[in-house]
Amino acid sequence: MIHTYSLIHDDLPAMDNDDLRRGKPTLHKVFDEGQAILAGDLLLTEAFRYLSECSLYTAEEKVRLIQTLSTRSGGQGMIGGQAIDLLGIELSQEALDRLHSLKTGALMAAAVEMGAIVAGADSQTTAPLSRFALKAGLAFQIIDDLLDVTHPENKHGKDSDSKNDKNTYVTLLGTEGTQKMAAQVLQEAIKELAAVPGDFAPLKALAETLVFRTT
Amino acid sequence: MIHTYSLIHDDLPAMDNDDLRRGKPTLHKVFDEGQAILAGDLLLTEAFRYLSECSLYTAEEKVRLIQTLSTRSGGQGMIGGQAIDLLGIELSQEALDRLHSLKTGALMAAAVEMGAIVAGADSQTTAPLSRFALKAGLAFQIIDDLLDVTHPENKHGKDSDSKNDKNTYVTLLGTEGTQKMAAQVLQEAIKELAAVPGDFAPLKALAETLVFRTT
Repeated sequence: MIHTYSLIHDDLPAMDNDDLRRGKPTLHKVFDEGQAILAGDLLLTEAFRYLSECSLYTAEEKVRLIQTLSTRSGGQGMIGGQAIDLLGIELSQEALDRLHSLKTGALMAAAVEMGAIVAGADSQTTAPLSRFALKAGLAFQIIDDLLDVTHPENKHGKDSDSKNDKNTYVTLLGTEGTQKMAAQVLQEAIKELAAVPGDFAPLKALAETLVFRTT
Repeated sequence: MIHTYSLIHDDLPAMDNDDLRRGKPTLHKVFDEGQAILAGDLLLTEAFRYLSECSLYTAEEKVRLIQTLSTRSGGQGMIGGQAIDLLGIELSQEALDRLHSLKTGALMAAAVEMGAIVAGADSQTTAPLSRFALKAGLAFQIIDDLLDVTHPENKHGKDSDSKNDKNTYVTLLGTEGTQKMAAQVLQEAIKELAAVPGDFAPLKALAETLVFRTT
């Protein structure tokens, strides 16, 4: 619900101004901008209601889930990254890494951290999982930039007017450099999993899927 | 935080398109629409983070506070009312009452209900408080419509393009009928307080302040 709200608001004319998402017309094109803003607000609000009412968890677990989700999707997380992005100023690679760790990685971190809370994992297990997710998110975003250049015809089902004006890894590092960086960040992400007990083959496979893709 | 986010989003061009709020330029006029959308999203998200981290309450209380706030500000509350409003269709008085109970009353209900949770009140105390708040919110909105007609020069610091096209009590009931209805709903609201133990003079005074105003 948080991810979907972020896409709906991100696609608005005042943000990325995308007419297409996943190859289909965006919500504000099908309905209108006002309803799209409200639909995003609704998903965001109902996500927290859902957690507060979910009968599977204790009150302590619910509070930790809500705290994690709100922190990772708030000013020190996803919205923080989006705000930097929206400034439209030229960024160093370090700043661009941070932007994408926040904008994309933070919500992936929320996902693994919330799983860890529900599973009763301790902080020694959760910390490397968080680092894994932040890096996997960064790798995903690096590949996103690369695909805009190598597969411009498909554009991952998006149709962004402003994309070309933005900071991208390809602009900073070139096509080959970007490819190398993606492979390196992926390896760093997977390395984090070694510190975590249990079978993390599914998470490794997930990270690889995020990187080895053409759409 | 929830109230402020709702005003920021409500003022956007895609919604009410207000250039002024409380006599000052709206957020999207001072910055831009994208940052205003994000600022609203941030306030909404951080409200739940704040509740989840507030050290004054037990986990059980936090969950109830979050459930109450998200329910009252979600699809069965404030956003639901806003969505009906945005449809722009002609409404019966009953539907208009419901719209304003949701759009304005629900958040006032959240305020008294959250106070009741923190005070450890039982449902026999909370239920009439909720009804009081929903009616006080409705009375506030009736007066809002009236002031647009009787004091058009001040417009309560707002500058809405679309206001005149909307359903209003003055259109439905005339100036005198609207005045009478406001007085009646106020009395109904105050009557609810009789069922509540303790000194509710401050709540009575608050409701009167909402109705006996000229701005």
